[in-house]
Amino acid sequence: MTTYNAPLRDMQFVMNDVLKIESFADLPGFADASPDLVDAILTEGAKIAEEVLHPLNQSGDKQGCRLENGVVRIPDGFKEAYDTYVQGGWGGLTSDPAYGGQGLPHVVGIAVSEMISAANMAFSMYPGLTHGAYAAIHAHGSDEQKQTYLPNMVSGKWAGTMNLTEPHCGTDLGLMRTKAAPQDDGSYKITGTKIFISAGDHELTENIIHLVLAKIAGGPEGIKGVSLFIVPKFLVNEDGSCGARNGVTCGSLEEKMGIHGNSTCVLNYEDATGYLIGTSHKGMRAMFTMMNAARLGVGMQGMSQSVVSYQNALTYANERLQGRSLTGPKAPDQAADPIIVHPDIRRMLMDQKAFNEGARALMYWTALQGDLSHLSPDEAVRERSDDLMGLITPVIKGYLTDKGFAHSVNAQQVLGGHGYIQESGLEQFVRDARITMIYEGANGVQALDLVGRKLAANGGRAIFGFFAELDAALKEHEGDEALKPYHDTLADGKAYLEDATNWLMENGLKNPDNAGAASVDYLHLFGLVLMAYVWLKMAKAAQEKMANGSGEDTFYDNKLKTARYFVDRIFPDAAAHLAKLKSGAASMMALQADAF
Amino acid sequence: MTTYNAPLRDMQFVMNDVLKIESFADLPGFADASPDLVDAILTEGAKIAEEVLHPLNQSGDKQGCRLENGVVRIPDGFKEAYDTYVQGGWGGLTSDPAYGGQGLPHVVGIAVSEMISAANMAFSMYPGLTHGAYAAIHAHGSDEQKQTYLPNMVSGKWAGTMNLTEPHCGTDLGLMRTKAAPQDDGSYKITGTKIFISAGDHELTENIIHLVLAKIAGGPEGIKGVSLFIVPKFLVNEDGSCGARNGVTCGSLEEKMGIHGNSTCVLNYEDATGYLIGTSHKGMRAMFTMMNAARLGVGMQGMSQSVVSYQNALTYANERLQGRSLTGPKAPDQAADPIIVHPDIRRMLMDQKAFNEGARALMYWTALQGDLSHLSPDEAVRERSDDLMGLITPVIKGYLTDKGFAHSVNAQQVLGGHGYIQESGLEQFVRDARITMIYEGANGVQALDLVGRKLAANGGRAIFGFFAELDAALKEHEGDEALKPYHDTLADGKAYLEDATNWLMENGLKNPDNAGAASVDYLHLFGLVLMAYVWLKMAKAAQEKMANGSGEDTFYDNKLKTARYFVDRIFPDAAAHLAKLKSGAASMMALQADAF
Repeated sequence: MTTYNAPLRDMQFVMNDVLKIESFADLPGFADASPDLVDAILTEGAKIAEEVLHPLNQSGDKQGCRLENGVVRIPDGFKEAYDTYVQGGWGGLTSDPAYGGQGLPHVVGIAVSEMISAANMAFSMYPGLTHGAYAAIHAHGSDEQKQTYLPNMVSGKWAGTMNLTEPHCGTDLGLMRTKAAPQDDGSYKITGTKIFISAGDHELTENIIHLVLAKIAGGPEGIKGVSLFIVPKFLVNEDGSCGARNGVTCGSLEEKMGIHGNSTCVLNYEDATGYLIGTSHKGMRAMFTMMNAARLGVGMQGMSQSVVSYQNALTYANERLQGRSLTGPKAPDQAADPIIVHPDIRRMLMDQKAFNEGARALMYWTALQGDLSHLSPDEAVRERSDDLMGLITPVIKGYLTDKGFAHSVNAQQVLGGHGYIQESGLEQFVRDARITMIYEGANGVQALDLVGRKLAANGGRAIFGFFAELDAALKEHEGDEALKPYHDTLADGKAYLEDATNWLMENGLKNPDNAGAASVDYLHLFGLVLMAYVWLKMAKAAQEKMANGSGEDTFYDNKLKTARYFVDRIFPDAAAHLAKLKSGAASMMALQADAF
Repeated sequence: MTTYNAPLRDMQFVMNDVLKIESFADLPGFADASPDLVDAILTEGAKIAEEVLHPLNQSGDKQGCRLENGVVRIPDGFKEAYDTYVQGGWGGLTSDPAYGGQGLPHVVGIAVSEMISAANMAFSMYPGLTHGAYAAIHAHGSDEQKQTYLPNMVSGKWAGTMNLTEPHCGTDLGLMRTKAAPQDDGSYKITGTKIFISAGDHELTENIIHLVLAKIAGGPEGIKGVSLFIVPKFLVNEDGSCGARNGVTCGSLEEKMGIHGNSTCVLNYEDATGYLIGTSHKGMRAMFTMMNAARLGVGMQGMSQSVVSYQNALTYANERLQGRSLTGPKAPDQAADPIIVHPDIRRMLMDQKAFNEGARALMYWTALQGDLSHLSPDEAVRERSDDLMGLITPVIKGYLTDKGFAHSVNAQQVLGGHGYIQESGLEQFVRDARITMIYEGANGVQALDLVGRKLAANGGRAIFGFFAELDAALKEHEGDEALKPYHDTLADGKAYLEDATNWLMENGLKNPDNAGAASVDYLHLFGLVLMAYVWLKMAKAAQEKMANGSGEDTFYDNKLKTARYFVDRIFPDAAAHLAKLKSGAASMMALQADAF
């Protein structure tokens, strides 16, 4: 049986010591996010994650979902857990107070999301999808649509989904076949089949608000003819109550590798009544609002599975007695030493620990940029934060999920043969983490978004702004002997990334395949530079606390030791990524397709 | 539904053009392995792999095994497939003719094993374990034991297993609790519980010969008091027929992440009659015979899952239409281009292709060393080959399974969301491949075996011999312009590995934790150098054939292109492994165990 313990102290370190969120108290929402209140929120969030949601993680995996006479049944206990979640107001933590939300900063919301996802990723997707649908309607819906749908979505009384993929198209949504036929009353009739719809149907809520991409007949070809529609499972009456069943049904449940507790549906739309969101044919713009938030959320999911699998591997490493330390017995009164004495077990645990803590700092820092991009009174700050968010969203999605999966595999490895047995629960974390590299745009698509779109946007304003920010940080800490290893690592990383960026700008124009061929290595190099940046921030914060007599010197000293591990053992991959990407597209594209 | 096509042309390339096995015709067994006969064997092996075994791979995974009233039921069709396999004489291909085997070289046997494992890894373990048990009895059993057990194991009438692990001990077998009580007739009564026993029970064969490690009361403490016993499921009568049921029962089946078609058992021994193999308390020596062969076999399994998953990813990449090439439409008459036009899809496929072909050459070359170590009339060659086999066995096991798994994950990624759906079959390859990193000694244990035992053996004779062999190869091809990239890559690799080896010798003595901390990076560096070596061999062979007017220039030119991809895109990790390992144990061991 697995356990989950929310790493509250580490979360507080990032929020209070590294990001110093108290210093933003003049921004709307942040005033309510005093350290005491944040502590209280995190403590309550930890309780529901540890005591309500995590105990359902393995049973939910084992039981899975099933379709009975058209009704989707989700695992035992999920409904009760969802009710507890809703009653606690967790769904609306960061939502607009105009629709019943609590309006707290995203940097607080992300910490709660981390706990929910680590505790039970399959469960977390039910409210997660609702929040994504909320965000799209909030940003692009009409006032009437917002009034009709958002209050019940914020409260958790209703759920939401996003419907993009069809059997023959996922990445290339321009090929979409789902049709929207205009009706006299201004609504549309939606017909088509959508697949891989997470949380696509269930009885957790009295209604489900599907957001559906479809093509209005006669519109432009391809991606420019795609529109976004609200298609409620039950039509909503004038008085806001649920009325007739709409023409959307669950055709089947996908049998997947993992996240068995989540109902991944094939949804059949047959003359379902839909309501256009925003302008016709501009559906992708609205969908991107949802997807960008969702991509950050998926990056967080990847990290969350690394966190929970690390905790369980660590417990095993401390308890399992096997062999003796290479430097002499450490538990001479026992038949063998706990395996945490062995360097290679340490390697796997330290890899995870350095990743988890770095990824958390990066994730929360990014969420803070999201808050600043909306809330800062300073236009320059808003622009900079928005640039930064856009630039690093694909990096967060790609890097944190590739590594989150790899570290879940490492955690499983710590348990040896026992990790391969279902009961241990470690293999579930691996299976669940695996989807994060795929959905919301496979990681290769993230990398293309990064090099093909984000780098070039506004003449490279975002990446140049990022380099300027790194230069400022490097300058600030130059000559600080205690920070030297972390400073120098970031300096190396920045030099590599600049080199790679220049190479891309020069060679990607000559031959676009060079950009494609470089993309994933560029994304991973970028991820390592971001990690170097946040580890420098964390090292600085730890040293400050120690210099000021924190009374917790061991905690802070351990941060420095972990930062050092990152420098020694994780960062060296950066040079390999640079070397690979600079080899260009030639050898990658050399073979004819029929020669493989 | 997945498919498997045995890559016969690639196999023949390695055997005939690279290893030139015909040139060894003066060795026993090799005379029977003429190119024509080998072709015939591979063609027949391909048929059973493709037509009999692969069609049972997904159904075997889905159905799994179950325990019914003490009887282990394996998936439908496995019994019939096993009978076909046995009737074809496949189990005894490389076995001793004295016991009914065909005495063919291991380099031929490994090619057949690759096909069987790629087609259906869970199935392949039933005959695979039998062969391991055969090898241990053959090397260490008495003449009477060999006469009693081997003919039926070679023919496949009986099966075999290996029993090491217990609930509280796996890596550290000195902690073992299974007891062997001497009886007046010279036999022993075996009592204890063994777990994770692959192919532990089934009704494929009329008997199962369990090889069981146990401690004889009063023997030395720890690993030096472990003995190896033959414990047949049914006692064997004087006339060789099966008699009374022995005291071994399947307590339960392990519920695993994958290889569901194989019956992984908890076996309970209660006063089971066992027969000592070899000398008492020397069981580990005999078990290592079995394990070394098994470790090479597991390396091959890792590769095999990469091969079959690659083939299925490739089919998808050629068929799935999505998006357009970055350099303009390649299939303008279709709604979109096949995704193989996209560089990042190429990256994943080329990573796999370069790995699969390199790993195959490495695996077959190693099997050839195994043949030479037994069969060469030249004592120096026998010693050199035996040294080399011993040295690289942990590298093959660790590197080929870590990468085999990673590439199965890559193959799954090519399919996007469809790869996460069970029906596609790709996620099964990932789940099946995962065990190869764990069993027969987790990969961290392989790395410790490499740096702690194999490097130091005989004053470093094996590693120095390997360096001398690399020097000779480098000298041979020095100045050959056409081979320059492959030559220079091997030269870099050899320099890195020498640097790492010197570092280890110096720092591992000072502090053994340095050796442990370096071990996995050293193993991966070693793996890359071996790959650079075999890619140089393959490039040379391809150029020779082209120079001699092979009539298959495209085939050979593609080998050169793939070799170049290895140089550009895979080898650069070598420097990162070197940098990491030279950082030593300090940051890895810095944290107190309670500070994680």
